[in-house]
Amino acid sequence: MDPRVREHAETIVDHSIDLQPGDNVVIQMPPVAEDLSVALHELCGDRGANPVRLHWSERAERAYLRAAGEDAEFETPEHALALYEAADATVVVRSGPNVTELSDVPPATIGAHKRATRPVTDARLETKWCLTQYPTPAHAQLAGMSTEAYENFVWDAVGLDWAEQREHQDRMVQLLDGADAVRIRSGATDVRMSVAGNATLNDHGEHNLPGGEVFTAPVKESVEGTVHFDMPVYRNGREIRGARLTFEDGRVVDHAAEQNEAVLTGILDTDEGSRYLGELGIGMNRNIDRYTYNMLFDEKMGDTVHMAVGNAYPETVGDENERNESAEHVDMIVDMSEESTIEVDGEVVQRDGTFVFEDDFR
Amino acid sequence: MDPRVREHAETIVDHSIDLQPGDNVVIQMPPVAEDLSVALHELCGDRGANPVRLHWSERAERAYLRAAGEDAEFETPEHALALYEAADATVVVRSGPNVTELSDVPPATIGAHKRATRPVTDARLETKWCLTQYPTPAHAQLAGMSTEAYENFVWDAVGLDWAEQREHQDRMVQLLDGADAVRIRSGATDVRMSVAGNATLNDHGEHNLPGGEVFTAPVKESVEGTVHFDMPVYRNGREIRGARLTFEDGRVVDHAAEQNEAVLTGILDTDEGSRYLGELGIGMNRNIDRYTYNMLFDEKMGDTVHMAVGNAYPETVGDENERNESAEHVDMIVDMSEESTIEVDGEVVQRDGTFVFEDDFR
Repeated sequence: MDPRVREHAETIVDHSIDLQPGDNVVIQMPPVAEDLSVALHELCGDRGANPVRLHWSERAERAYLRAAGEDAEFETPEHALALYEAADATVVVRSGPNVTELSDVPPATIGAHKRATRPVTDARLETKWCLTQYPTPAHAQLAGMSTEAYENFVWDAVGLDWAEQREHQDRMVQLLDGADAVRIRSGATDVRMSVAGNATLNDHGEHNLPGGEVFTAPVKESVEGTVHFDMPVYRNGREIRGARLTFEDGRVVDHAAEQNEAVLTGILDTDEGSRYLGELGIGMNRNIDRYTYNMLFDEKMGDTVHMAVGNAYPETVGDENERNESAEHVDMIVDMSEESTIEVDGEVVQRDGTFVFEDDFR
Repeated sequence: MDPRVREHAETIVDHSIDLQPGDNVVIQMPPVAEDLSVALHELCGDRGANPVRLHWSERAERAYLRAAGEDAEFETPEHALALYEAADATVVVRSGPNVTELSDVPPATIGAHKRATRPVTDARLETKWCLTQYPTPAHAQLAGMSTEAYENFVWDAVGLDWAEQREHQDRMVQLLDGADAVRIRSGATDVRMSVAGNATLNDHGEHNLPGGEVFTAPVKESVEGTVHFDMPVYRNGREIRGARLTFEDGRVVDHAAEQNEAVLTGILDTDEGSRYLGELGIGMNRNIDRYTYNMLFDEKMGDTVHMAVGNAYPETVGDENERNESAEHVDMIVDMSEESTIEVDGEVVQRDGTFVFEDDFR
């Protein structure tokens, strides 16, 4: 086993989910991540935690969803719900032998299934959860990289000094927390929103590993303007390119995409909440220096912002504000490296990717 | 995918667990059985059942158990228990890439973990459950067979005409049901027990696939005599050979083995119930014509009987009798093909493997 696998497992257990003796843990991963599973089980045994492994197989998922058909009426799987309701911690390892495995499942079926399983997702988010990545040849291929180069990329991003990163990101949190108006401009993008009353969180590798962003929730009906997402969105094996969303009173009233617009439409039509933003995030992890078609990494890239349609994380929404609820949460990225600004309450806090608190800000 | 995999899945779903719309199903299997998992998920989607997959990995299990150590105090994993308590049906697919994966886990650790997880096992046995096999190179190797020959062996055994088999076996059920004294003699084996008040069941491929036995529970304290198990017991990667148990008042008072006696001792020392018999079974599946070091098949072989120390199946124990309870259930086989008899209430019902209701009985 590569020694970085055990280091990765230690970061998950000690930093991300803060595993305690007696914790009931669910580890959900595909077979290809077996080494990481073994390392995690070793730590569970060492710490006196109780692991249950779920097998995430997109081949099986595809077979199930296609057989259920386009008109399927899915039920909430009560046994999966009971499992997560009794769990203290969850580790989801993203991976798999073929990232396009779900490419021939009708988007409507995927949407219907997501709606039915939302209580399960919600219960999982009530545990100490961590979503992480195991490097596989399929994900290397998606990124256009050799497997070894991709392994280095993943383990470098995961192996960051998280204490130092937290401090760096905290400077951006200070700028957003307590602020009201945010305006983001870049190319065809010009969007305004309020974040008043909502909390800005510092993602330093807890729920997401790698971490490396600060994020908050827009006030639900405050979003106005147009966003052109100039980086692709890779979704259920399909690539949405050039997505463009227009917001009025927070709601997406117009949308288009240069490629796979129907997939975008499927996402927006999932439920009422999937037409509202649930997240505004600012990518600050400069160890992630390339786009790899993998949102867990891409949204953390330096010089980017991302917005997610769909579910808002409860911890970002203030008591006075309505939380946007949805079975969806789809992040989309805007490149901020050139001719771009982020303004907070009228003041430019980032220009062309450089923050106001950095030396080369002008 | 081999078409026999889909046939196997159909037998599981339609015959073994009688899957109904809305059933919450748990499918527990190692990655190597992926084809069967895909076929089962297809059928779940088709029938409107809700699958959850558990990943059975002995590599991870080994890492967990070894890290927990010999003195580990395991807890019942409440989340696993909740999962099974809310499940309607369970399919456990036995398989794996290396059958000796647990060979360097201390037997005491395995025993302690089994005790702690017994409520989970009990909850699983309350569902409509099926234990079956996926043919892998590792199991072929264990049996000393080529992978293709082993695949044929497994799918032939699984693909039996179960209606016909049920009828054949029912003749033996009639002889045992309502009977009292059973005596089994073969070589060094001479053991007597009562089955009075207990029920004899006809295993025609429901809980076990393949099926092919009739089985009951001895009255707990009635077992007297010595059994020499002349077929090996393959247990957690170790082979117990020549096991010999001596019973007084139902309890094992003396035991020995020609090889791996310590493993046998570990089994017997699991708990109080692991020193009593929980099952007497008669193998009647003549499609299983060779010993393959796999109890799921071996105990069904024609011309054999088997006895299990440990837990008795509740459905075999009459209301008037005490059920033997244990975290263990270990089957051991006696070859009955030569110089052997089964007597029921003083009458020989099988001689040298041939039943009294068969033409060539003498």
